[in-house]
Amino acid sequence: MSDENMKKKLKIGLVGLGVVGKSVYEILLNQKEIFQEKIPVELELVAVSSRSRKNFVDEKKVKFVADPLDLVLDKEIDIIIEVVGNIANIQELWVEALKNGKKIITANKALFATKGFEMAKLAQENDSHIAFEASCAAAIPIVKMFKEAFAANKIKTFCGILNGTSNYILTKMKNEKIDFSVALKQAQEAGYAESDPVFDVEGIDTAHKLTILAAIASSTKPQFDNVYVEGITKITIDDINFADEFGYKIKLLGIYKNDGEALIQVVYPAFVSKDSRIASVDDSFNAVFTQGSNCGDSFVVGRGAGGFETASAIIADLIDMACKRYSYEFGVKVENLKTAKIKKIQERKGKYFLRVSFDKNSKKDMILSNEFLEKIAAQQSYFYEKNDRIFCGIITDKIVEEDFLTAFQELVGVDDRHFIRVEEI
Amino acid sequence: MSDENMKKKLKIGLVGLGVVGKSVYEILLNQKEIFQEKIPVELELVAVSSRSRKNFVDEKKVKFVADPLDLVLDKEIDIIIEVVGNIANIQELWVEALKNGKKIITANKALFATKGFEMAKLAQENDSHIAFEASCAAAIPIVKMFKEAFAANKIKTFCGILNGTSNYILTKMKNEKIDFSVALKQAQEAGYAESDPVFDVEGIDTAHKLTILAAIASSTKPQFDNVYVEGITKITIDDINFADEFGYKIKLLGIYKNDGEALIQVVYPAFVSKDSRIASVDDSFNAVFTQGSNCGDSFVVGRGAGGFETASAIIADLIDMACKRYSYEFGVKVENLKTAKIKKIQERKGKYFLRVSFDKNSKKDMILSNEFLEKIAAQQSYFYEKNDRIFCGIITDKIVEEDFLTAFQELVGVDDRHFIRVEEI
Repeated sequence: MSDENMKKKLKIGLVGLGVVGKSVYEILLNQKEIFQEKIPVELELVAVSSRSRKNFVDEKKVKFVADPLDLVLDKEIDIIIEVVGNIANIQELWVEALKNGKKIITANKALFATKGFEMAKLAQENDSHIAFEASCAAAIPIVKMFKEAFAANKIKTFCGILNGTSNYILTKMKNEKIDFSVALKQAQEAGYAESDPVFDVEGIDTAHKLTILAAIASSTKPQFDNVYVEGITKITIDDINFADEFGYKIKLLGIYKNDGEALIQVVYPAFVSKDSRIASVDDSFNAVFTQGSNCGDSFVVGRGAGGFETASAIIADLIDMACKRYSYEFGVKVENLKTAKIKKIQERKGKYFLRVSFDKNSKKDMILSNEFLEKIAAQQSYFYEKNDRIFCGIITDKIVEEDFLTAFQELVGVDDRHFIRVEEI
Repeated sequence: MSDENMKKKLKIGLVGLGVVGKSVYEILLNQKEIFQEKIPVELELVAVSSRSRKNFVDEKKVKFVADPLDLVLDKEIDIIIEVVGNIANIQELWVEALKNGKKIITANKALFATKGFEMAKLAQENDSHIAFEASCAAAIPIVKMFKEAFAANKIKTFCGILNGTSNYILTKMKNEKIDFSVALKQAQEAGYAESDPVFDVEGIDTAHKLTILAAIASSTKPQFDNVYVEGITKITIDDINFADEFGYKIKLLGIYKNDGEALIQVVYPAFVSKDSRIASVDDSFNAVFTQGSNCGDSFVVGRGAGGFETASAIIADLIDMACKRYSYEFGVKVENLKTAKIKKIQERKGKYFLRVSFDKNSKKDMILSNEFLEKIAAQQSYFYEKNDRIFCGIITDKIVEEDFLTAFQELVGVDDRHFIRVEEI
């Protein structure tokens, strides 16, 4: 590693002092001995900006800047670490930072998934750079794995548990036999879910991460608007019990497939075999399974959230910058990013779990007629009675989603119906 | 990523055309479209050297050089890919390559574990570089994870299944209830073990990889001679059965711990709980569990051997070089590598499994006296009779190895004794 042409000191501005920001601050100020010898320059945190001054304790060492825009325009600063999260005016900050030749390190998946192409273009035009390892699965270095470690591979498939909050809730529901709303409340009390949990439980956060990783995996433009997204809010304790009965667990997955013609990029809760590695990933852990054309199968588990866990990824990006280890944001130059064709969810061919319930006096064989069961290619079924109602769970064989849905929606005599896709990983 | 000061073309020489070499050759010649846009230069394989010309099919495109030393001294070549393996005169090749300013990419764990410090020093003195991702767990990017992704962490513990051959044999023994020698033979027939399997089954290969990873994890000099090494050749089908009975599986592990004072670096077969992630890693797969001070727990599974799987890591190193993404060989400059204090295996405090057998007419309570059972802190025991002999398995509580061994060796009246350490991961 050549030391020449390196600046003696890289000056850093930190925007955001939440859980992650405070951890970044702590590492940069008090844990430098871990990494100082790994880099050929000094790193110095010179300024911090935060909505509130109350988290800021150490003004003798680092200056406080009330307006983050002032921090971004500070000529002294080389690198901006942005850990504010999904807030509207962050894009403006990024634009100003990049236009002023500053590099950005971020954990902001929402902005990067939706505006990543424009931002990467701006970075490239200004000979700057955006690093975002922390945005995708915090302490799991999946961005680095896709961009660097697996660079000599066509990534054929990846499938991830990318949202710790949802995984925590699903684990609680299963282990404690409680409903979604109860589990959500417990997750909020334990600090695993935010007061407004929509992004997490509706699958949007997973979709942001999937969008970014899919773009890197395929060297194509990120297409957040073309991700099929379904969250976990409709999962009931009955679904969890049926899954258990059939030998499955329910996990919220982000799934990517590339057959060379078109991409699948979807987010939904799915039945996964209890024996699969991905099923063993519980609580707030994240995980990614990948199939590469040369490296074969890979599986990685780690902490997908948390202050120091996320800061670990941010400081890794910073160390990469200090060592001049760069890669193009989406793996290739922006002008080389193609627009992928995205497969529609209706074209999915796979297995399905369906759950229906009806009054116990209804004629079961009339409702779930042989004709219907044949249409959906039913393979296994399980019934039980609860509160004068019959609950029926069925697992189908592989069938095209459109055909399944047609049959499923035409079903008469049931008051309550729900389906969940089955994934073989 | 700045393109300035980059050479337009990087010229590569490949030494070795075995399984890995042929895969590297194939990727460089026929799969360039996967990675060409990810790098700002052209990569060109210009020369190949191999013991035998018979694997070399394509002399129109790439020149064949009989003597690898001639290839290394070729002024045209920038990067040497060395995939010959553990052969005596390879060190001389490396020295000549480095002295002539060439960079090295290698899968040679034996040479790097034993001479890595000297070689890294030589590389540094010559402003050159050695990349060795493929050496440690092939397609698992554990070197990159330790050096880059987890750079902002003290690595407190790591524990790996780092030898696919041993893992394949242990899996066969368990699943098919066969003895070591039979499983080894099957592994050789299936191409998973070499005709001389000593390095694999005696734990030496695992120790090489552990040495390299331990040095990076602790920023200290590699100390291969100070690794405690025990292989799997003494594991019997009785051990496998007892493990199963007690809720464990047997895995050959490389274990590293750093308490800030001294390092533990040991290789031995161990009982691991059936429910642990590491126990689920079967066949020829490798895996590494890591605990970092900021990133928390991480676990990665992947292909630890195979032609294209290993070549995937080699080409990743090559792409890093083409993008000028460098790190110091052991994470920090060689002059900053300290010499770690290494803990002796006798100081280990942990649980043990012991197996003894004796004639069925012996007095069991005399041999396994209460005094003995107390000394070894016995917790669970299990007996069975086979061929007029009594087989006894015992799991102990945590006890210092030296104390355990003293009691174990003083035991009289048993014809056959063996012990295996129990690891809680």
